[in-house]
Amino acid sequence: MMRTRPLKVALLGCGVVGSEVARIMTTHADDLAARIGAPVELAGIAVRRPDRVRDGIPAELVTTDAMALVKRGDIDVVIEVIGGIEPARGLITTAFEHGASVVSANKALVAADGAALHAAAEANDADLYYEAAVAGAIPLVRPLRESLAGDKVNRVLGIVNGTTNFILDKMDSSGAGYSEALDEATALGYAEADPTADVEGFDAAAKAAILAGIAFHTRVTIDDVHREGITEVTAADIASAKRMGCTVKLLAICERAAHGESVTARVHPAMIPLSHPLASVREAYNAVFIEADAAGQLMFYGPGAGGSPTASAVLGDLVAVCRNKLAGATGPGESAYTALPVSPMGEVVTRYHISLDVADKPGVLAQVATVFAEHGVSIDTVRQQGKDGEASLVVVTHRAADAALSSTVGALRELDTVRGVASIMRVEGE
Amino acid sequence: MMRTRPLKVALLGCGVVGSEVARIMTTHADDLAARIGAPVELAGIAVRRPDRVRDGIPAELVTTDAMALVKRGDIDVVIEVIGGIEPARGLITTAFEHGASVVSANKALVAADGAALHAAAEANDADLYYEAAVAGAIPLVRPLRESLAGDKVNRVLGIVNGTTNFILDKMDSSGAGYSEALDEATALGYAEADPTADVEGFDAAAKAAILAGIAFHTRVTIDDVHREGITEVTAADIASAKRMGCTVKLLAICERAAHGESVTARVHPAMIPLSHPLASVREAYNAVFIEADAAGQLMFYGPGAGGSPTASAVLGDLVAVCRNKLAGATGPGESAYTALPVSPMGEVVTRYHISLDVADKPGVLAQVATVFAEHGVSIDTVRQQGKDGEASLVVVTHRAADAALSSTVGALRELDTVRGVASIMRVEGE
Repeated sequence: MMRTRPLKVALLGCGVVGSEVARIMTTHADDLAARIGAPVELAGIAVRRPDRVRDGIPAELVTTDAMALVKRGDIDVVIEVIGGIEPARGLITTAFEHGASVVSANKALVAADGAALHAAAEANDADLYYEAAVAGAIPLVRPLRESLAGDKVNRVLGIVNGTTNFILDKMDSSGAGYSEALDEATALGYAEADPTADVEGFDAAAKAAILAGIAFHTRVTIDDVHREGITEVTAADIASAKRMGCTVKLLAICERAAHGESVTARVHPAMIPLSHPLASVREAYNAVFIEADAAGQLMFYGPGAGGSPTASAVLGDLVAVCRNKLAGATGPGESAYTALPVSPMGEVVTRYHISLDVADKPGVLAQVATVFAEHGVSIDTVRQQGKDGEASLVVVTHRAADAALSSTVGALRELDTVRGVASIMRVEGE
Repeated sequence: MMRTRPLKVALLGCGVVGSEVARIMTTHADDLAARIGAPVELAGIAVRRPDRVRDGIPAELVTTDAMALVKRGDIDVVIEVIGGIEPARGLITTAFEHGASVVSANKALVAADGAALHAAAEANDADLYYEAAVAGAIPLVRPLRESLAGDKVNRVLGIVNGTTNFILDKMDSSGAGYSEALDEATALGYAEADPTADVEGFDAAAKAAILAGIAFHTRVTIDDVHREGITEVTAADIASAKRMGCTVKLLAICERAAHGESVTARVHPAMIPLSHPLASVREAYNAVFIEADAAGQLMFYGPGAGGSPTASAVLGDLVAVCRNKLAGATGPGESAYTALPVSPMGEVVTRYHISLDVADKPGVLAQVATVFAEHGVSIDTVRQQGKDGEASLVVVTHRAADAALSSTVGALRELDTVRGVASIMRVEGE
């Protein structure tokens, strides 16, 4: 049963992702029509710089007036691949008010203001879908929201930023320092000219907020996510991880607290054992583990960014949203009924690898061990190395609260025999 | 917005999966209600042997008359976890006729008769969902049907049967033969008393048929799937694979033919390189690769069977089907518009590892090589080993059509100098 009047789609943004979306909508129009049950027509493409529009994009569809496009009144679905907070937010809200559903790849906006956007969609009986906002083509939003809708998710743990994974992978495989690896990532197009959003963990934190909110049926914004980037990871950290049979990855970790009354969300570099499947995620790939009560441990792996993979996710959402339109229904909206609070980083419980520069004299280890004990942080292993009056102590702890670890490190810095804290890194995935 | 009148659910079957479904529906009733937007009520449980019903199952809901239960007229959703063709098929069809949607975990039935079931669902404006039929809790049906609905899938390659993976993993790690490994699998509960469905590849073939149909938007039944089990895999095969830097896995492989005008689906043991991610899938775990034009290569990993994981998939579908009911809509049904034919195994193109027992005398290799050349099968490597007048030749071919390889092997058997064909195994994942 095929409807002949086409569904009209407005595309906002025509960069790497947008041009690929437009290309596939044109070349695979028949397949999309068959899967939706009605043809879809690209009715307009809003761009900032019409002179930069790529080959193959129909010139007659291009406009610089995005707002006029979403206000046209005949648009069924708006695809937003502009990114950033404004003008994307205003355009999406206006699209809902004019009866359109929205497919977005905008992690920053959804992580900052997802609740308000969902409310605007619901008020207008419209859909807001954003599979492409998290980990490119890897299905994560839909599996969490739909496949696991009858289960209880306890943990989401993964590599959700390709740029930082590429850099850390290079550091691990070549022994390079951070700057050198970043230069290579930039030269190969894996890092942007201004890499801040990636290397400081903002991009991963936005994805963590989105995943945590969906996984735990509560509201989590990017401001709730503890965030540490990779700019301070050194070649020495990587070497130290190797000695422990580990590698260093930038992880996004969303967890239900032990008694289930709160959740945590964090992004930071961490050591993980080489035997852990995430340790073998190379280059710019992404991979995410989801642990649920009944399902057990699931892993999803694939290309986490790039024009084509992101376009694949956008078009999957487009098909779903169009089907809903034809059925006169909407898909699952925001689910925040648990209203679980987000606990601060201090309450996160994990293990730590701490590297100390200490005086090479008797009694230092005893002093250091006493400080750990006084703060309730139990030591798993200590490795002591010394030469020429200088020495280092590498301490790996048992599981402890982040706040207790911070107090411990503060007290260690006070010791005369501790010359410096060379590095602190969490140990995950064990 | 919560509707107060509950949706009524009939559960057909209360074994390992069914009892877990009933348990979660009871203990997580509030969560399910919040996610669906209305309470769900277990209205009846049909079992064959009421004396065997597990603890915690409300006795007043149990009946032996499944047909009367689905005919009650007030049932919104029927969950079928009986398995097998009949009576499951008759019950599902009757359920549709009485206005219910159906969630099924029945791979055999969907793989045998999916088209008719989908037609019955559509004729009654009902849903037929069966995520649990393929690889337990691992989301595969929904990602293929929805997340990748805007993409073009070219290949599905995976380990979809936990029993056989457990057996092959044991053979690989311990050097055990097939029978010994099967005994261990049976003792540990990974293999059933009659392991035929698993070890002969029927279970995997059913899943391959379902995945191929959804991936390529065409109809594929279990009869279309080329099927070889693992009963003839020997310790020598595993050892031979190891010498090649490979391991042996039972793979389900669904492919679009080179020019896209047909598809193939097959299940057979194959050697894969140890560097391939599927090589490290241990014990009874499942993992599936999906390759699509825009998305690239995605992998999904997790527990492929068991009561809880399968129940997780059933309940995810239950939530989706209930939401559809409340919205007065149905989810995506069968998509078979490409109507691509399924090509026979002879047209599959892959590589082969062939082990020959030959006479240890000059000229044998030349004879063998001539036979390969005459049948258009190009040789990649040959390894020759000899002692005491006996010798073996191990030939690894370049990519060739299965039919050409079969003819080659037929001709090799005719050679006086070839005493026997010790093994033939396909090589995948390179």
